[in-house]
Amino acid sequence: MDVCFCLPARGHTMSRRGSDRSHCIRKTALRPSDRSTSAEPAIIEKLHEDYMKPGVLSLAAGVSYMKPPRDCLSWALEAVLQSDSADPHRYGDVVGDQNLLEVIRRKLETVNKLTGQEIMVTAGANQAFVNVLLSITDVGDEVILTKPYYFSHLVALQLCGVVPVMANSDPELKPDPIEIKASITPKTKALVLVNPGNPSGSVAERELVEELETLCHDAGIWLISDEAYEHFLYNSVAHYSPSLYPNQVINIFTMSKSYALAGWRVGYISYPKILSDSMLKINDTVPTHACRTSQSIATKALEDDGDFPAVHAKELERNRDEIWRVVEKYATVKTTGAFYFFIKAPGGYDDLDATRILAEKYNVLVVPGVAFGMPGYLRISYAGLRYEVMKTAAACLEEGLLYLSRIPPEREDAKERWD
Amino acid sequence: MDVCFCLPARGHTMSRRGSDRSHCIRKTALRPSDRSTSAEPAIIEKLHEDYMKPGVLSLAAGVSYMKPPRDCLSWALEAVLQSDSADPHRYGDVVGDQNLLEVIRRKLETVNKLTGQEIMVTAGANQAFVNVLLSITDVGDEVILTKPYYFSHLVALQLCGVVPVMANSDPELKPDPIEIKASITPKTKALVLVNPGNPSGSVAERELVEELETLCHDAGIWLISDEAYEHFLYNSVAHYSPSLYPNQVINIFTMSKSYALAGWRVGYISYPKILSDSMLKINDTVPTHACRTSQSIATKALEDDGDFPAVHAKELERNRDEIWRVVEKYATVKTTGAFYFFIKAPGGYDDLDATRILAEKYNVLVVPGVAFGMPGYLRISYAGLRYEVMKTAAACLEEGLLYLSRIPPEREDAKERWD
Repeated sequence: MDVCFCLPARGHTMSRRGSDRSHCIRKTALRPSDRSTSAEPAIIEKLHEDYMKPGVLSLAAGVSYMKPPRDCLSWALEAVLQSDSADPHRYGDVVGDQNLLEVIRRKLETVNKLTGQEIMVTAGANQAFVNVLLSITDVGDEVILTKPYYFSHLVALQLCGVVPVMANSDPELKPDPIEIKASITPKTKALVLVNPGNPSGSVAERELVEELETLCHDAGIWLISDEAYEHFLYNSVAHYSPSLYPNQVINIFTMSKSYALAGWRVGYISYPKILSDSMLKINDTVPTHACRTSQSIATKALEDDGDFPAVHAKELERNRDEIWRVVEKYATVKTTGAFYFFIKAPGGYDDLDATRILAEKYNVLVVPGVAFGMPGYLRISYAGLRYEVMKTAAACLEEGLLYLSRIPPEREDAKERWD
Repeated sequence: MDVCFCLPARGHTMSRRGSDRSHCIRKTALRPSDRSTSAEPAIIEKLHEDYMKPGVLSLAAGVSYMKPPRDCLSWALEAVLQSDSADPHRYGDVVGDQNLLEVIRRKLETVNKLTGQEIMVTAGANQAFVNVLLSITDVGDEVILTKPYYFSHLVALQLCGVVPVMANSDPELKPDPIEIKASITPKTKALVLVNPGNPSGSVAERELVEELETLCHDAGIWLISDEAYEHFLYNSVAHYSPSLYPNQVINIFTMSKSYALAGWRVGYISYPKILSDSMLKINDTVPTHACRTSQSIATKALEDDGDFPAVHAKELERNRDEIWRVVEKYATVKTTGAFYFFIKAPGGYDDLDATRILAEKYNVLVVPGVAFGMPGYLRISYAGLRYEVMKTAAACLEEGLLYLSRIPPEREDAKERWD
């Protein structure tokens, strides 16, 4: 067939051409997709670009200053260096290397009390979430996020053509079952639970998680449980991985936070068998698999350094105390997990203005709440800097927040907005 | 709001519940998505699972037996081992590490004659392709693949809600401009060119690529040029990277083939600036970035081992000759690139039956053409085995193909089909 497209479609300009040319000229076609342009910007990248000038201390990034356990690195890297085999350089199994799957299975059984599900290694928790979305949702389906949500979850939904539905949290920044229930429609496919929460820092404890599980079960929707911060717990709270209804829960984990291995891009998912074929296709097509050597490092870390995550979390306590002392009067609640506090910008400031002022005048970078669906708030990470530097950052933050609380926005030159 | 959904949607079963429960019970909702179930299966994984019994030699996988250049490995891994810094373990720039972007820029200028575009490091060429799709297509758009297509491209289209349109190739298995032009509709967003071709092995030389570029330009569609096999060229053909209209071309490259670094998952894309924001959002949301250490290895490899890819390709020539001797009489054409021959299954055999017989009776694994949209064909890789082993595989293949050409399908017990 060689057709002439005489009916212009939206955004297309047509013109007749000689028979040696295509009939259809669409000058406006060479632009980015609507799904990508309408998705939220890469917020952390943009913040760093705009504000990370020399001297600015970052309380923005979702990463700790800690290094991974030494031995798993040397074990894995020396094995590669000493090996004559091409194996670590070749493609591996799409679901992940067998040794790693085995230690993950043991970790899930002993630490998370999760059994009987399928496991897949992914290139981190973000990529895991994209896998999960593609495996359970179709275009036009709805997925519920609770505010404040994790921004990459929203962008993933937007890119995958899934409609995000936002449910407000309770006053302690925990998921609110009443709000969630009210957000369910016949198009709802899943509820996303980030626990401990990013950016909220709140921990949904066992009773609440079980209530959410039951709610999802009764509504016939999936529960996607992102447990990236499973080990970062304070004030004696405990982590609980949803497991009442294993046929409807998908748990996402990562080595990035607990083991400080973010740069190696390795995480894992636990999911019901009914999703196996879909997950395999998706992983094969998107990352193929996680970096093989990252998988070796993860294997050794999970095998030998089971205590590391708790030590890591403990190590952050001084930082946490230091930052809490500063933010206490602006925070709704002293949340007990992850490594964030989520506070109201003082003095009625817009969060973008507050972020700009803190960075430009007080040399300290935070993330504006609008990135998480809650304008007027700020996310403060207490993990990214060593204690000595964190003390300086906390002092800058203290001065900055005080300024904001004393100088009303109308007196501050707030015209030059961050956008 | 707390609504009761009285109108059952397709696939939903409703029932009234007490006010303490959700009103909506959807027993059938907990199943995989349509987009994932209707997508093609992960073919190579399935083949290996079904047929890679001990003793079977694989001519199936798209990977060579070669090891990566030694020095880039030791340089990068020893740097990690000796470093006191947490940097290689932390998140990196979403677009890629600056050093790597710099050497990629030089490589693109000198080797590919590509200048003035944006560059992003990806976690391999598959993930790059998903990035590209999400950045330029919306749900319902059409993208043209030429048959035989690369299966991961088809699955990526299916997962992203894009309609694949297939254009037949010419008798030499090269893209056919007439067929492609005839496949363009007002919904077409892009043409995908895999050059050198996988699975065809055919090379579209400069004149043909320029014709395709012009065709895309005139039609106002993107040209996605997957150049994963750019260095695997035989019979003195040359690789040409499309560059006539840099504002409409997106070039995809990978370290997996040329540098035998498949297990490290690192590739890169070159694209017009108009896509920068979209690409950044997408990479941030899907892989975040490629493994940092994989990026260091790639940096050193591109910097110091520019000759390696040509040596690598040359090394495969003996394998290529050996396999060609065996497949010559079944092949349409002696294609001159990548590391595949794409041949007609002898004796009128269905490709799935032929694959099964070759694996089960002759201990040699190939990929059935149906995986590439051309039933009745077989893809034979000549890269995966060292010459000594390849000779044995070639002998098995020779016997197997001879059997197929002599024993008609109706006499062969072909009931137990591979599915």
